Amino acid sequence: MKHNFSAGPSILPKEVFQQASDGILNFNDLELSVLEISHRSKDFVEVLDRSVALVKDLLNLPDTHKPLFLTGGASSQFFMAPMNLLAASDTAHYVDTGSWSTKAIKEAKLYGEVNVLASSKEDKFSYIPKDYAKPTSGTYLHLTSNNTIYGTQYAEFPESAIPIVCDMSSDIFSRPIDPDAFGLIYAGAQKNMGPAGTTLVIVNEEMLGKVDRDIPTMLDYRTHIKKNSAFNTPPVFPIYVSMLVMEWVQKNGGVKMMQQRNEEKADLMYGEIDRNPLFRGVAAKEDRSKMNATFILNNAELEEHFLQACKKANCVGLKGHRSVGGFRASMYNALPIESVRVLVEVMQEFEGTHG
Amino acid sequence: MKHNFSAGPSILPKEVFQQASDGILNFNDLELSVLEISHRSKDFVEVLDRSVALVKDLLNLPDTHKPLFLTGGASSQFFMAPMNLLAASDTAHYVDTGSWSTKAIKEAKLYGEVNVLASSKEDKFSYIPKDYAKPTSGTYLHLTSNNTIYGTQYAEFPESAIPIVCDMSSDIFSRPIDPDAFGLIYAGAQKNMGPAGTTLVIVNEEMLGKVDRDIPTMLDYRTHIKKNSAFNTPPVFPIYVSMLVMEWVQKNGGVKMMQQRNEEKADLMYGEIDRNPLFRGVAAKEDRSKMNATFILNNAELEEHFLQACKKANCVGLKGHRSVGGFRASMYNALPIESVRVLVEVMQEFEGTHG
Repeated sequence: MKHNFSAGPSILPKEVFQQASDGILNFNDLELSVLEISHRSKDFVEVLDRSVALVKDLLNLPDTHKPLFLTGGASSQFFMAPMNLLAASDTAHYVDTGSWSTKAIKEAKLYGEVNVLASSKEDKFSYIPKDYAKPTSGTYLHLTSNNTIYGTQYAEFPESAIPIVCDMSSDIFSRPIDPDAFGLIYAGAQKNMGPAGTTLVIVNEEMLGKVDRDIPTMLDYRTHIKKNSAFNTPPVFPIYVSMLVMEWVQKNGGVKMMQQRNEEKADLMYGEIDRNPLFRGVAAKEDRSKMNATFILNNAELEEHFLQACKKANCVGLKGHRSVGGFRASMYNALPIESVRVLVEVMQEFEGTHG
Repeated sequence: MKHNFSAGPSILPKEVFQQASDGILNFNDLELSVLEISHRSKDFVEVLDRSVALVKDLLNLPDTHKPLFLTGGASSQFFMAPMNLLAASDTAHYVDTGSWSTKAIKEAKLYGEVNVLASSKEDKFSYIPKDYAKPTSGTYLHLTSNNTIYGTQYAEFPESAIPIVCDMSSDIFSRPIDPDAFGLIYAGAQKNMGPAGTTLVIVNEEMLGKVDRDIPTMLDYRTHIKKNSAFNTPPVFPIYVSMLVMEWVQKNGGVKMMQQRNEEKADLMYGEIDRNPLFRGVAAKEDRSKMNATFILNNAELEEHFLQACKKANCVGLKGHRSVGGFRASMYNALPIESVRVLVEVMQEFEGTHG
């Protein structure tokens, strides 16, 4: 068995792989593959309805907040959010916590005034800025809740007088949230929700209808709300697998239990990073991500040796992002704590050999 | 075994279902699921490269024509094509052959001058207009090569002095084409290419860089050309399965053999529609689609009986689109001729019972 620490696309629950594999040969006992059924069939409409219901249930959404299953990744939401929400003469506020925020800021500038409240760029995005005047006006405050590359995460979201628009691609369903604080949440599926190929968007309807630009039909959130994410053929299989993953989350105690498991895994992982004299963490301690632990070897020359030791123990996906270097242990919902234990053992043995 | 005549998502080769199902449990002997590997991993980069090579090979593309694997369906190409190609002061010509063309026309109007050369709307889109003055100027001529709803298809594409932009969602890889005639080809995967969730775009680079509007990064074809369809996380699994389907096409003689098989199936199907006194075809004979045969019962009261007879013989997906009624037998590349034989037998037995 491999221990998959990949940053995304990433590990999903083992039982989901089995269900998905079975569904490709015979879905719902139809003697048809889930890949060959119509998106208008009763069986797929049920998948879509159930997926929407699961999002609402897991995140405790009020009726104003509509879950949509779109495509194009979070990268498409970087422009779709301001295109749908931000009038040309209005201002949106952004906090720049890394590569994804930076891209979101770039796209938003095509649509309205963009005010960058704070950035940790000068410190290689190793912390989450908190010391800035909170906006009292403007259309929304944009945040990236978890930064996969740098291993930082908002432990708490800031209080905000205006709706928060949040990229939760890499930590959705990893903990409870207060949905009322959010005007829009978006997340590429391929970390905690499912395989690559669908993007969850949760939009508070009250945010919509306030811009007067022409929006192509497929880019208008209202199209997809009205048609329950089936205006055109949705990505059937990625949505199906996302449903299976959300069912697994629900069966395993919901986002509250996910949070507890994720904290246990993070404690174990960061505990070893802090204890082991060969390693050190990259991100500011109070902003450490529970999803992606970034760390380096004090002696960079040992990097290749360590990756080899990981590989020997079946731990894969640990190479850090090229812009940060070192290592990254991604510990999404589906990663069992046993995998973290194995990695910690590898680090301890490595200390024995190279310490 | 079911005979799947669904209009899309639709039947794919049986061996592809098996390969896809296996890949979800253990991809390339990595002991990892294809759903959990990084899109930057060597194994997936190979899938992407191979998919691009297969498109080039199957359609005999010149180097100017770049295959891209995007998302958002053909519905997103309705606006992306004019957004990328059509300057505000220039004209694009459209032929309106049904619901999809109509939607493409609507979106194009957001970007430049749109001239509708011809339409068969007044005759319920039952034929392909051919009697119109071919444009001698303008940016492109937009065509929908096959119309799933009405069961019409261009038997031959018109000679055009300007590049053709073509929606080939429902007949790509069903026959050889002359790529030089096309400035842009797009196709949602979920008929002849793969499962829902990716969209093939083939763009002649010479068409690009001629508009001066701001284009969001994700909507700019140049972004995806430059990054080989991996600017952001692409839809890994839909692309993987598309690759498997294209390999199957190649192994089975390429698009030339597909054409021959499709003609055999269509001959059998339309032969029975024309012979059987209970049924009649919907589309003009010379424009009949080899992908989707639309037909009705002369006595509409027997419709439910016929669908029941089909079901009993394991023939599914035959109900016609609500806007046309009657029946639709979709016969994409992967549908075996045996399935058409079974359906023809059902029609013959139905004649015996109700004739």
